[in-house]
Order: sequence, then structure tokens, then C-alpha cells
Amino acid sequence: MTKGIKQRLVEMVATDLEKIEIELEHHLNPNLELVRQIASHLLFSGGKRLRPLLMIHSARLCGYHDDFEITFSTIFEYLHAATLLHDDVVDEADIRRGKKAAHTKWSAAKVVLTGDFLLARALEIAAKTREPDIISIIAKITRDMSQGEIDQLEKKGKSDLSEHEYLEIIERKTAVLIQGACQSGAILAKAPKEKQEALNQYGFHLGMAFQMADDLLDYTASAKQLGKNPGADMREGKLTLPLIHTLANASPEDKVWIKDAIATTKFDLDQFEKLKQKLVAYKGIEYTENRAQDHVKKAKACLDYFEECPSKEFLCVVADYAIERKV
Amino acid sequence: MTKGIKQRLVEMVATDLEKIEIELEHHLNPNLELVRQIASHLLFSGGKRLRPLLMIHSARLCGYHDDFEITFSTIFEYLHAATLLHDDVVDEADIRRGKKAAHTKWSAAKVVLTGDFLLARALEIAAKTREPDIISIIAKITRDMSQGEIDQLEKKGKSDLSEHEYLEIIERKTAVLIQGACQSGAILAKAPKEKQEALNQYGFHLGMAFQMADDLLDYTASAKQLGKNPGADMREGKLTLPLIHTLANASPEDKVWIKDAIATTKFDLDQFEKLKQKLVAYKGIEYTENRAQDHVKKAKACLDYFEECPSKEFLCVVADYAIERKV
Repeated sequence: MTKGIKQRLVEMVATDLEKIEIELEHHLNPNLELVRQIASHLLFSGGKRLRPLLMIHSARLCGYHDDFEITFSTIFEYLHAATLLHDDVVDEADIRRGKKAAHTKWSAAKVVLTGDFLLARALEIAAKTREPDIISIIAKITRDMSQGEIDQLEKKGKSDLSEHEYLEIIERKTAVLIQGACQSGAILAKAPKEKQEALNQYGFHLGMAFQMADDLLDYTASAKQLGKNPGADMREGKLTLPLIHTLANASPEDKVWIKDAIATTKFDLDQFEKLKQKLVAYKGIEYTENRAQDHVKKAKACLDYFEECPSKEFLCVVADYAIERKV
Repeated sequence: MTKGIKQRLVEMVATDLEKIEIELEHHLNPNLELVRQIASHLLFSGGKRLRPLLMIHSARLCGYHDDFEITFSTIFEYLHAATLLHDDVVDEADIRRGKKAAHTKWSAAKVVLTGDFLLARALEIAAKTREPDIISIIAKITRDMSQGEIDQLEKKGKSDLSEHEYLEIIERKTAVLIQGACQSGAILAKAPKEKQEALNQYGFHLGMAFQMADDLLDYTASAKQLGKNPGADMREGKLTLPLIHTLANASPEDKVWIKDAIATTKFDLDQFEKLKQKLVAYKGIEYTENRAQDHVKKAKACLDYFEECPSKEFLCVVADYAIERKV
């Protein structure tokens, strides 16, 4: 099923994907070779180009038919890459997209500055849209994401993180960027406010579903599928919805066991398997799947405002893919 | 003399300075208290507000008379603070403006993310100007500064750094921001291209003079004046113009001695005094002063395009201040 949906998506946008790659290469164009190396390490390591595709198809859904949507769509991949580079330093994660994280190959300083460079590139292209509203969206994304990350850092290891706090964190760190890509597409097409708002909401729900699915995969996928070890979030002290729901419903003894497990820095495979059993038993997995499903339904409902067309179909299939993917 | 010029400047812009402080406080407005703390630690630790003042007076010089120049001027202080926060992590400097650098109080991750937050704030305010050209300038500043810093990092400890390489580095790391503040003022006032270009050039020369004066002060000022130990650049392996010129003109023996001194991680006060004597003997100090003077002259010449007015006088006095200041 999943392979089917992924293949279908790729077929729908094969031409777009080729053009996005060309534009990403073309506009990167740094003065320094080292900046190209650090940026390329992340940018061209098999990203799905989800955010550019969302902007392109949001624009087309709103009737955009100039030729610049591919160029402008790179804004959101550069922005995404910039935040990943800053996050790598933040997380001290060693693996990203199955490759060594940039900061393990280069100093944190260089990685941070290359992130700034990519952010600048995103801005330069955004300025060319001549749409101050798109700039405001990028500013809001940057502001929300930086605060979301700090919030998450502050709450690391907090074993009583509430579902509400979790939702706030994932909205800021993931949903706002996807939301911004969709809304910017609508603005680019000079769509009326209702259509902008519909795509804004579509993006929000899609982003929330995506992050919940990501947080599920951290427990359910294999190291090979993830390109990194499963259970990474938990080992870093990041509580996500499967665990939060489980903790809220676990027996006092299991609660103590889980909290101890979170506090442990060394956590072996056996313990991880035991934890997964508890996530199933207390329905942490099921609950998260249901919440993600709800968001997918709401995302799709936002598309009702629009006429049938290939871009609408694409956005609809992406919503399903958000939770059916295995990586 | 220096005290006189500084006092004169402060008197000229006392009202502006008060308003800038209020706007900086007002627009900071983060969701998280921690972000306010980290940002405030740097923002409200006695900055000169040079960049906002330059934008304000560039705008007024071009006939701007709406009421938003103070608000918009904060763009350049937030941007400056954002780059200082990222630089603190990069430099691993312990002291900034006489206070502990942010990264010694908070983790590098939080400091980087607060830098991102300030950059976002700058952008949000810039978007409100509805001038895509100002956004392009901010993007160019961010791009140039990030690359300038990486370039400087790459060239740390390079004892044969050329004057040309040095000029490239300081243009990117200092001049582009000051230049951008001046040019944005002109754009805000919807000045004709020639006036924009004149202020752009004024800002470039002022920025170059400022950085050269800074690099001189690192050798000539006291720890008390600097708010940090003198000779810091050299100890970090950063060659600046006084030393570059001295190396280019030193005798073979002195060249060897200086290169050894640069390579040494521990460098005592006696050695530093000996080095300073060589900088005087080989005219490294004098040459740098002359180059800075040239830039000040060129900066002032750019003001010839404009009618006499208080803002012109301010910009003229700032140019003198650039090299006459002691801190």
C-alpha cells in the first residue's frame, strides 16, 4: 500500500521534481566552496521536496499560471534545510537522512553560518516575489520554529509533558513551515482570502499529521527504514504523543517504570521492546494514529473549496501519504 | 577630543535614542520568557544603536517625514544582535560589551535559536515597510555576513593573509550591514537611485573605517576601554590590517618572531607589548589609520549630494567618530 501511494505521488510530480532539483542547484550559488559543500551535504541527500511541491500545487490549485512557481518553491526547501542545519547543532543528532549530520563533519560554527546562508537565499528569492505577505510568512515561520525548538529544549526530559504542550511544540517546529508553503502558493496566485485561508488550514493539519506520523515512526519503524536508530526521541528526553498518552493512562507501577526508562541515558534494545509493548497496551500508538487520522481528514476537507484538478488530487494523496508512509 | 565628539553625537540624537530603546523593547515580544532573557542580555547591554541611527538619518536626509522611521530602524539593531549571537558561538568569545557572552550563560543551541528569533523579528518589521528592496538588502546582508564569518574561520591562523583577503572579510562582516542600514533609509524615503547609491557608498566607507578602527583598538586600547582583553583577535588567530601590513614590511627575523607569536596559544603581556612595538616600527598602526582616514574622507564626500540639514551634520560627525572613538 505505502509503496503504491509513494510511487503514485512521484509519478504525479516527476517533472516538477526534476525542475526543483535544477533550481535548487542553480540558486544555491555561494561565494565560498565550503558553503556549497556543507549546504549540499544536507540539501542533496534525498529530501522528499515536500515543501516545494506543496507550494507549487497550492499555487496551481489557485489558478497560478506564470512560470516562476518552481523558482519560488525553492524558498521552502532552503528554509527547511536552514532549520535542519540549526537543529542538527541543537539536537547534537549524529545521523540525518541516513548520513552523518553536518556538525559531525564540520564545526558547529560553520554549520550554523551555512544555515544562515540558506536562510538568506530563501529570503532573496522571496523578495523577488515582490509579495510582502510572503516575507511576513517566512518571518513568522522562522520566529515560531526558533521558539518551538527552544521550548522543546527547555522541556527535554520533562516526564509530565502534557498533550497540549506537545501540540504547541509540533505546531511550531513542523506545521508552521508546511502551512506557510501552502499559504504562500495561494498568495503567489493572488487567490482570494478564503482560498488562502483554506490552504493555510490544509497545511496546518497536514503538518500536524506529518509530525505525529514521524513521532510514531520513531517507535514503529526499523533503523533501516528511518536512516537512524529508532527510539531516538525518547533517548534524547523528547516526549512525543505515543508516550504522553501512555503515561497518562498507565498503572502507577508502569508509570514509574517508564519514567525511570526516560531518565536512563543507556537504554538497551530489550528495554525498548518492553516500552513498545506498553505503548501498544495503553493505546499510545493507537491514540496517536487516530489523532493523525483526524488531522488528515480535516486537511482533506479544506480542499473541498476547490474544483477538481491534478493539483487537488496531488494534495489529497499527499494527505494520505502523511500517515501511510513508512519513512 | 573623543569625549567631545561622542557627547556631541549623543546630544544630536538624544530623543531618537530614547525612542529607539522603547521600540526595541516593544517589538521584541517573544512567546517565551527565556528568549526575552537571552535576547535582552545582548540587546540591552549598552549598544550604541549606531545602525538604527544611520537608517533614521539616512531616511530624513532623503526627505522622509512619515512617523515610522524609528520602528523600521529597529530592523538593523535586531539584525546586528542576531549576528552577534551567532558570532558569539562561532568565536567562542567569553566577553562581549564587557559582559559575559550569551553562550557562556546559556547553551550554544539556545543562543543560536535566539539569534534566529531576532532575525525573524527584523524580517517581520522589514515586511511591514512593504518594500521588497529592503528585504533584498537584508537577505544580502545575511548572506554576506554568514559567508564573511565562514571565510574568517577558514582563514584563522593563516599568517600570510593578504590585505585584499582582509578587506573582503571586513566588507562582508561589517560594512554590508552599515551600508544596508543607510541604503534602506534612502529606500524608505523613496529617494532617487543616485541618492540611494550615495548613501550606499557612504555606508560602505563608514563601515570599512569602523572595522579598521575596531581592529586598531584591539591593539591600542586598554582592557577597560574595550570591555575585553586587548589582542583578542591575534590570540584567536585573526590577522587584521595592522599586523598584515607589519608582516609585509618586517625584516625576515621579525617576520619569524611574529609568525611564531601568532601560532602560540599562550601569549603573555610582555610579548604583546613587544608585538605592539613592532606594529609601530613597521608602521602597521599608521598605515591602518591612514586607510581608515581615506574611508572617512570618501564617506563624507558622498554626503556632498545632499543639502545641509541636521541629519547631514549627524552623518558627517559619525564619520569622524568612526576613527576618533576610543571604544
